[in-house]
Amino acid sequence: MAEKKLEGAGLRGQVAGHTALSTVGKAGKGLTYRGYAIEELAEKATFEEVAYMLLYGHLPNQSEYDEYSAKLKSYRRLPDELKEVLQRVPKSTHPMDVLRTGSSMLGNLEPEGDFSNQNETADRILAAMPSIITYWYRFSHQGETIETETDHPTMGGQFLSLLTGETGAIGTLRGPLHGGANEAAMETIEKFSSREEANQGIKKMLANKEKIMGFGHAVYSNEDPRNKIVKAWAKKLGELSGDSLLYEVSEEVETVMTEEKDLFANTDFYMASAYHYLGIPTPIFTPLFVIGRTSGWTANVMEQRADNRIIRPSEEYTGPDKSEWVDMADR
Amino acid sequence: MAEKKLEGAGLRGQVAGHTALSTVGKAGKGLTYRGYAIEELAEKATFEEVAYMLLYGHLPNQSEYDEYSAKLKSYRRLPDELKEVLQRVPKSTHPMDVLRTGSSMLGNLEPEGDFSNQNETADRILAAMPSIITYWYRFSHQGETIETETDHPTMGGQFLSLLTGETGAIGTLRGPLHGGANEAAMETIEKFSSREEANQGIKKMLANKEKIMGFGHAVYSNEDPRNKIVKAWAKKLGELSGDSLLYEVSEEVETVMTEEKDLFANTDFYMASAYHYLGIPTPIFTPLFVIGRTSGWTANVMEQRADNRIIRPSEEYTGPDKSEWVDMADR
Repeated sequence: MAEKKLEGAGLRGQVAGHTALSTVGKAGKGLTYRGYAIEELAEKATFEEVAYMLLYGHLPNQSEYDEYSAKLKSYRRLPDELKEVLQRVPKSTHPMDVLRTGSSMLGNLEPEGDFSNQNETADRILAAMPSIITYWYRFSHQGETIETETDHPTMGGQFLSLLTGETGAIGTLRGPLHGGANEAAMETIEKFSSREEANQGIKKMLANKEKIMGFGHAVYSNEDPRNKIVKAWAKKLGELSGDSLLYEVSEEVETVMTEEKDLFANTDFYMASAYHYLGIPTPIFTPLFVIGRTSGWTANVMEQRADNRIIRPSEEYTGPDKSEWVDMADR
Repeated sequence: MAEKKLEGAGLRGQVAGHTALSTVGKAGKGLTYRGYAIEELAEKATFEEVAYMLLYGHLPNQSEYDEYSAKLKSYRRLPDELKEVLQRVPKSTHPMDVLRTGSSMLGNLEPEGDFSNQNETADRILAAMPSIITYWYRFSHQGETIETETDHPTMGGQFLSLLTGETGAIGTLRGPLHGGANEAAMETIEKFSSREEANQGIKKMLANKEKIMGFGHAVYSNEDPRNKIVKAWAKKLGELSGDSLLYEVSEEVETVMTEEKDLFANTDFYMASAYHYLGIPTPIFTPLFVIGRTSGWTANVMEQRADNRIIRPSEEYTGPDKSEWVDMADR
């Protein structure tokens, strides 16, 4: 089997498989999920509706939707053994590692069996993820053991109320910032207390060749189609909270980055302020991103299983042709 | 970024990176680790010596070897929280999933920090893996909580004695077969109680188009260079145990497969009988394979980190160009 050496490190531009789920960065196609423009989905569909469409192939009708929502609700419960594991994960653990350990343990307790159960498994993982992260967070940070099986009609509502322990309106949900500021965009934005300060601070950082996170994208080259949706939400949430400073600073940073570096904001950038307005602690930003993506990832796993092909690229060998053994006494 | 469509599904033949660790299936090079032929390593080196060479780049001298062995011994201890997690993993869990959950939890309890600690992390994972799988196995199957920090000079000795609860000679270690017979090669071999039965049984399976596991290989095309080493050990262990039947049946199956199908035995095939003679329960075959590989996998992670490049192939989009939104009431 001859090895081909190709342009682009890390298999960039190489096709590993097929997907009918999403277009990412295809010129002229925008970003779509099964052909639906994300702008339209963001405006009209709930998260559960999009998840159903990704996982079952079509938009649900009312009875399918009601049934699916009820099913996801029933899957919010965590087994006792999983709770006991989460209680032993240290407070200092990165929340992404908590999701990794929690979903690994869930797989032990409720094994999938064979592929015929994959839709059940995907739904169970999807519904359990918010419970896993919030159960651990409240236990490790606040010493509370929470009941994850709530009556909130949506996953988003369940997640927010469990995380913050409050059930008020959005504007009241603003909570404290816990843990290490591991979300770099947030770290930058929260440094500044005015537009003017942000303007000068970013220019100074650029002059010092510091990297500003939340700009540019590995796949999108002109704009991130998600940005305008998230930006509009950040603005709205800032207004609802009665304190738009974080949004205004974000806008100023974006302006400077466009003017000075011709770089566009990616979806991470305004998510920082939007998530913050929702009361989500900074270390939980990435897990929340992951919870949303779980619906698409599991749908993608199903596609790969249908293809039933191990993805197995090679590595180019750069070591010695032959090494001579030397006995230990002679080393 | 234009997508290239290439020969071979699953990125076969495409180069994802570089490695100086091992040649696998390169014509004319055989199988080598950093240039050393595996036949020579299998004859002359201990596991710890090979692991050191993979992870630190050269064969250890005596003092390096003594220090490394002592370090791996000190890393056999499991934190209490990890033991408590393993106690909650059901007996029915696949042992590979136990390793996944155990190493995930270990990472929470002892985070790597940054890449400068990667050698410590690799050594810790390597030494902890046998402790994780044996601790769980003895607890879930026999209700015993074992002490994993033993005085055995080698990882192999520690693993075998913890798993079987015995410290006798190899020939006495033969233990019962637990769990589902998930090692397909073993499943086939143990069906037969004589060479003649094996000969006829395999021919019948072939006539029925049943798949015989342990033959052929995805990368090697003419022979598996590991087979003759493992085969010689299976033979020796069979003789030591005083019951060579399993080995003889294996040999007969190999003969039939070569004559009838022109297929060669791969490393899995004689591992079944060799592991069985060592007293290893069938469900633990794959975890044991993994424990050995951990040294090479972690060395490979270090190479990829040095390259610092996300491996990011694409997928070809096969979904609809545009889907029209339909309101729920109209679905």
